[in-house]
Amino acid sequence: MAAAVALGERGRGRTAPNPHVGCVIVKEGRVVGRGWTQPGGRPHAEAMALAEARDDSRGAIAYVTLEPCAHESERGLACANLLVDSGVARAVVAVRDPDSRTNGRGLENLRTAGIAVVTGVESEAAERSMAGFLMRHRLGRPFVTLKLAMSIDGKIALPSGESRWITGEDARAHVHGERARADMILVGRGTYEADGPRLDVRLPGLEDRSPRRAILTRGDTVEGWTRLGNPEEVHALRDVNDLLVEGGSGAASAFLAADLVDRMLIYRAPILIGEGKSALGYVGLDSIAAAHRRWMLTDTRPLGIDRLEVYERVRASSGKVGTGFPPG
Amino acid sequence: MAAAVALGERGRGRTAPNPHVGCVIVKEGRVVGRGWTQPGGRPHAEAMALAEARDDSRGAIAYVTLEPCAHESERGLACANLLVDSGVARAVVAVRDPDSRTNGRGLENLRTAGIAVVTGVESEAAERSMAGFLMRHRLGRPFVTLKLAMSIDGKIALPSGESRWITGEDARAHVHGERARADMILVGRGTYEADGPRLDVRLPGLEDRSPRRAILTRGDTVEGWTRLGNPEEVHALRDVNDLLVEGGSGAASAFLAADLVDRMLIYRAPILIGEGKSALGYVGLDSIAAAHRRWMLTDTRPLGIDRLEVYERVRASSGKVGTGFPPG
Repeated sequence: MAAAVALGERGRGRTAPNPHVGCVIVKEGRVVGRGWTQPGGRPHAEAMALAEARDDSRGAIAYVTLEPCAHESERGLACANLLVDSGVARAVVAVRDPDSRTNGRGLENLRTAGIAVVTGVESEAAERSMAGFLMRHRLGRPFVTLKLAMSIDGKIALPSGESRWITGEDARAHVHGERARADMILVGRGTYEADGPRLDVRLPGLEDRSPRRAILTRGDTVEGWTRLGNPEEVHALRDVNDLLVEGGSGAASAFLAADLVDRMLIYRAPILIGEGKSALGYVGLDSIAAAHRRWMLTDTRPLGIDRLEVYERVRASSGKVGTGFPPG
Repeated sequence: MAAAVALGERGRGRTAPNPHVGCVIVKEGRVVGRGWTQPGGRPHAEAMALAEARDDSRGAIAYVTLEPCAHESERGLACANLLVDSGVARAVVAVRDPDSRTNGRGLENLRTAGIAVVTGVESEAAERSMAGFLMRHRLGRPFVTLKLAMSIDGKIALPSGESRWITGEDARAHVHGERARADMILVGRGTYEADGPRLDVRLPGLEDRSPRRAILTRGDTVEGWTRLGNPEEVHALRDVNDLLVEGGSGAASAFLAADLVDRMLIYRAPILIGEGKSALGYVGLDSIAAAHRRWMLTDTRPLGIDRLEVYERVRASSGKVGTGFPPG
């Protein structure tokens, strides 16, 4: 299943509104088929894996990160039916699909056809991988990642406004990788004015993976960009699983104040700035006590001379990071 | 020698103006004597180790972290002479003593007496351990450590001034340990007014290790406290090897602007504060480029829910952290 999750990750940033699912078909201890959701959302992972396995699927085990879909579409057959037709003997599923068109019916169809079904395997890893899709169906909004590049002391510019460069090339390349993994990136009006045309993916081989772009502004929209009047309007982004908020300080603070950030990527440069522009403004805090128990450092690693710190929001409902929901 | 450095560390914070030296005497592969500089600076490490070794010192090897002193004092014989009298066959020395009363004469006295002398062994570890003493003799000032406790975004209080608690109990206990290892702690006037009486060591068994206290102020001094009118006056602190600057923001910024900080201990709480009081004010920066290549993260580790980040000043003279001097 870990291999299936890793395969699913290949689709990240290019499958929305569909989830990026992974599928591995194993027969007699040998992998006979591998699949992942293709760009645009079709074919699905199961269809691709079954096409590779061909007749070897008879009596095999299918590992799939998300419950196979139960709904036909003009773009393809329901994956549950494909699995039944393929003759697999057993299906191992990580997470139940919260999409109302499936939501248990995929598993039911498999069982009715006599396939042995096991669920909840490696569900934590699959939940993390597809957090955006799952969150959209459960909370009606995308998984929101906030990127902040700052000094040791939390500053992003000198009083003069000079801000290039706080972080080095490795950190900036990492940001481009995160853009390629998002369905949409969002900036505030000020950052749009300063950097708008540059907000694409500039990594060799990934140039075509630049995500859609959104601007947070009370003013007019920009041609080709999606406009959000306030952070709550992420609930209207029906086809975005993963949203990357790139700044600046105003947009970042507005999303934090609305408690609409699930993950923060802090690119920390080993410099002190002192007097200057802070990374954040008002984030809705009334007391120091209220600031605690909201964030957990889940990863930290060097990126050239800088350091990446990944913080995830601890949701009170589960005490866990990520989607905050128990595995479906 | 690593064992000798570790023994020397036992004296840290209680030997100034003397260095905290460690000494191990080995005979036929067996440790026969161990010593470290005692509180108040005497007896010296060699005297203690030789007293333990007694007759076993004949023909033994003495490992000592600093060149044995060559100067007699009313408080004890010169260690070089003690070693000669003890009959050791060989002396292994990590670092040469820059004190003008010794500075090579200790080694010379040993050699003249027919003892085989090796220098420069584990000198980097010994240099780090005794950085304060060495810096005082080489630059005429103590080794300065700056402590800062802050949020992810570099804030130390809400706009209201509320600042308790940013960090948790483990981080605060670690600060008390750092106090016990310093010869003197310094705060600005504001922090003195807020926390003055509390600036002691409150760790079980270490209550008697509270260091001397200093206040950075243009105003009057406080009874029992040393007054510094500005950071440059650290050059007048003749009997302090290790100075810990505890804040607040004004004192920290003044020391950084004067480039008189050698090491920073950042206690980082996993919280966001947003609008509020910044950890630092003006630190003398004219451009972002000038902020780079000054600090290196040399250690980071969890402290309860918080994280300690240790940054050391990279001195241009050597490109190294620490005292910035090649081993003596």
